[in-house]
Amino acid sequence: MRIEAFHVIMAGGSGTRFWPVSRSSLPKQFLTLVGDRSLLRQAFDRAAAMSGEANVYVAAGHSHREMVLHALAGFPRQRLIIEPCARNTAPCIGLSALRLSRVNPDGVMVAAPADHLYTRPEALTRAISVAVQAARSTGALVTLGIKPGRPETGFGYIEVETGKGAALPEGVSRAARFVEKPDAATATAYMASGRHLWNSGVFIWKIGAILRAIETLAPELWSRLQEIDRALDGPGEEAAIAAGFSQMPSISIDYAVMEKASEVLVVPVDPGWSDVGSWDAASELQESDAGGNTIKNAADGETLLINSRDTFVYTSTDRFVAVVGVEDLIVVDAPGAVLVCRKGDSQSVRAVVEALKARGRTDLL
Amino acid sequence: MRIEAFHVIMAGGSGTRFWPVSRSSLPKQFLTLVGDRSLLRQAFDRAAAMSGEANVYVAAGHSHREMVLHALAGFPRQRLIIEPCARNTAPCIGLSALRLSRVNPDGVMVAAPADHLYTRPEALTRAISVAVQAARSTGALVTLGIKPGRPETGFGYIEVETGKGAALPEGVSRAARFVEKPDAATATAYMASGRHLWNSGVFIWKIGAILRAIETLAPELWSRLQEIDRALDGPGEEAAIAAGFSQMPSISIDYAVMEKASEVLVVPVDPGWSDVGSWDAASELQESDAGGNTIKNAADGETLLINSRDTFVYTSTDRFVAVVGVEDLIVVDAPGAVLVCRKGDSQSVRAVVEALKARGRTDLL
Repeated sequence: MRIEAFHVIMAGGSGTRFWPVSRSSLPKQFLTLVGDRSLLRQAFDRAAAMSGEANVYVAAGHSHREMVLHALAGFPRQRLIIEPCARNTAPCIGLSALRLSRVNPDGVMVAAPADHLYTRPEALTRAISVAVQAARSTGALVTLGIKPGRPETGFGYIEVETGKGAALPEGVSRAARFVEKPDAATATAYMASGRHLWNSGVFIWKIGAILRAIETLAPELWSRLQEIDRALDGPGEEAAIAAGFSQMPSISIDYAVMEKASEVLVVPVDPGWSDVGSWDAASELQESDAGGNTIKNAADGETLLINSRDTFVYTSTDRFVAVVGVEDLIVVDAPGAVLVCRKGDSQSVRAVVEALKARGRTDLL
Repeated sequence: MRIEAFHVIMAGGSGTRFWPVSRSSLPKQFLTLVGDRSLLRQAFDRAAAMSGEANVYVAAGHSHREMVLHALAGFPRQRLIIEPCARNTAPCIGLSALRLSRVNPDGVMVAAPADHLYTRPEALTRAISVAVQAARSTGALVTLGIKPGRPETGFGYIEVETGKGAALPEGVSRAARFVEKPDAATATAYMASGRHLWNSGVFIWKIGAILRAIETLAPELWSRLQEIDRALDGPGEEAAIAAGFSQMPSISIDYAVMEKASEVLVVPVDPGWSDVGSWDAASELQESDAGGNTIKNAADGETLLINSRDTFVYTSTDRFVAVVGVEDLIVVDAPGAVLVCRKGDSQSVRAVVEALKARGRTDLL
C-alpha cells in the first residue's frame, strides 16, 4: 500500500529518562532500546515503506545533524530539517510545512515523533492511510488516537465526538476536545467511557491546512515563519532560520494549534504503541528468556547472569557485566557511568540526573 | 610494648573471590577493602608497630614485586622475599627462615598472612607477644588460635589439649590436633566444646625450630632448601631460588609441618579476626550509614544511592555509579567489568570467574 504523503520524523527530542545511556549528545531516538534498530531508524523505515524514501524528511536539532546522517546511512542533507534551537513541536512543524510547500503545496504531510515504538506497525500504516485520505478529502487537521490499554495518568487524551455531524470517512471520528493528563480516577473513567484515546503525537494534514491553521491560531509563530519563508532557498536561509527560531515561543503543536482548531479529526488505532518512556517501559518491551532475563549488548560488551531472573541488562560499552543472584533489576552500563535500578523505580532516574546537574557533572549528562 | 621478633608477611596469595576488582595482577592483599589502607599495608603497619620496621619482611610472588614496593612506599628490596612461583606457604616459610637465619639464627619469627583483617589489633599484639615469649622459652612451634564466633564450616580448627602435661606459660595451650573443615553438625559441636579454635594461619617459632621441623617432617622440601641455602647471598642466588621453587611441592605449612609436629603450642585469642573471604565478608566489615549503605570509592569514582538500603558499592574506577530503589545488593565497578550481586550470594562470584576462564577472558582475570 503506497501512501501519497510527505513524512516528517521529528527527531528533535532530548531527554534524560534513559540515563546513563541517553545523554544530551545521544537522546533516546538514537538508542537501540528494542529490536536491532534505533527508534529513529525504525521510524524512518516505517515511513519509507509507506511512501518511499524520497518523501521522508527528518527534523532534528543542530547538534544532532551528524548523528542523524550516521543513523540513516545515505540520508541526504537536503531532507534534513535543522532546528537551530529547541522550540518544541510547533516551530518544527511550521518550518517543515514551509519547506514542503516548496516541494508540493498541495501535498499531505505526516508529522510523527522519532522516538515512539509500534509493535503492530501494519495497524499504524492502515491508520495513516485512512488519515491521509481524510486530510486530503476534508482539508481538516487529523491526528491518530491510540486506544488506551490502561488507565494511564502520564498521557494527554483526545475525547471523541459522539454527537452527529457532517458525515466522515470510514474509520474517522471527530475530536471533541484535547484533555490534559488526568488523575487516576479520571483516567479510569476515560478507560470505561470508550470515548477517550491517547494523544499519539502523530499528525496528518494538508500542508496548506496546517500553515493556514498556524496563521490563524498562532500569529506570533506565523510572523516568524514568514520571515523565514522569505529567506528560504536563498543565501540567508540558515541565518534567517536561526534568527527566527531564537525568537519563536517554545510551544507544542497541541497547545499552539490542535486544541484551538475548530475541527480536528481523529483516527482511532491500536498499533501496539509505546512512547518507551523509561527503562521500565523498555524492559517490558523486550523479549526475555525462560528466566525472564534480557541481555542487550548495544556495543561490544558481554554479560553473564547467574542465578538471576526477571532482570534486564543493557550495555553500551565493551565492558563485562556479571549479575549474580538477583531478580527484578535493571542494570545499565554506559560510558562513564553505571545504573543499577529496581524494576518499577526507573522514574527515579530523574533524581539521579538532577543530582548530576547539581554537581555540575555535564560530562555525564 | 616492643616485641623482639622478625615478621614475615606472606603476601603471595592470589585469588578471585574479589573479582572484578581482584585480578591475578592485583590480589586481595593489595585491595583497600576495609578502612583506608590495603590489607597488606595494615599487616605491615601492625608488624612494624610491634617490632620496628627494620624487622618486617614481606614475601610475595615475583609478578607482585613492584606492587609491594608501591604499596609500602620506602620498603627496601632487601627485605622483600620473592617467591619465583606459587608453592603455598611451606616453601615460602622455609625460604624466609633461611634468609632470617643469616640475620640472626637465634631469632624468633612471626609468619602471618597479608590478607587478613583484625578489628582488635591490640588483642593480636598481646597474643603475639605471649606467643613470641613461649616460642623463645620452649623452643616449640606456636600458632594463634582464633576463638570461633560462629560454627563456621569454611575454616580448619585446632583442638586444644585439656589433659595435664608439662607446665606452659600463662595464656598458652597445647594443640591436641589440627582438624579439617568440619561439616555443620561438627562445627556446632566444636563451638559448644570450648576446645576448638580457628586456625589463624599465624605462626610463631624460633628460626632454628622451624628449620629443624622442616628437616625432620618435610625432607623433600628440606633438600631443596639446602640447595638454595648454599647459593644465598651469592651471584647464583636468584637462579637457585627459581630452580629450587620450581621443584618444590606446593604445600601448606599446616600439612607439611604443623599437623605432624609432636608438640605445637597455641595461644587462644579473639582479635576481631576475619579472613575477608568474600564480598559478603567485606560488606559486613564496613561501617554503614543509617540506611545500612556503604560506599567505597577506591579510585576517583563517585556513587549515588537513591531510595536504597543495606547496599554496598565498591568502585575502583573513575566511573559514576547510580543505585536506585534496591536493597541487599553488592555493586562493584572495576576496570573492564562490573558485578551486581545479591548479598549472601557472593560465593557465586567463583562461577563468574570460571565462566570467564572458559571464555578465555584472561584480560578480566
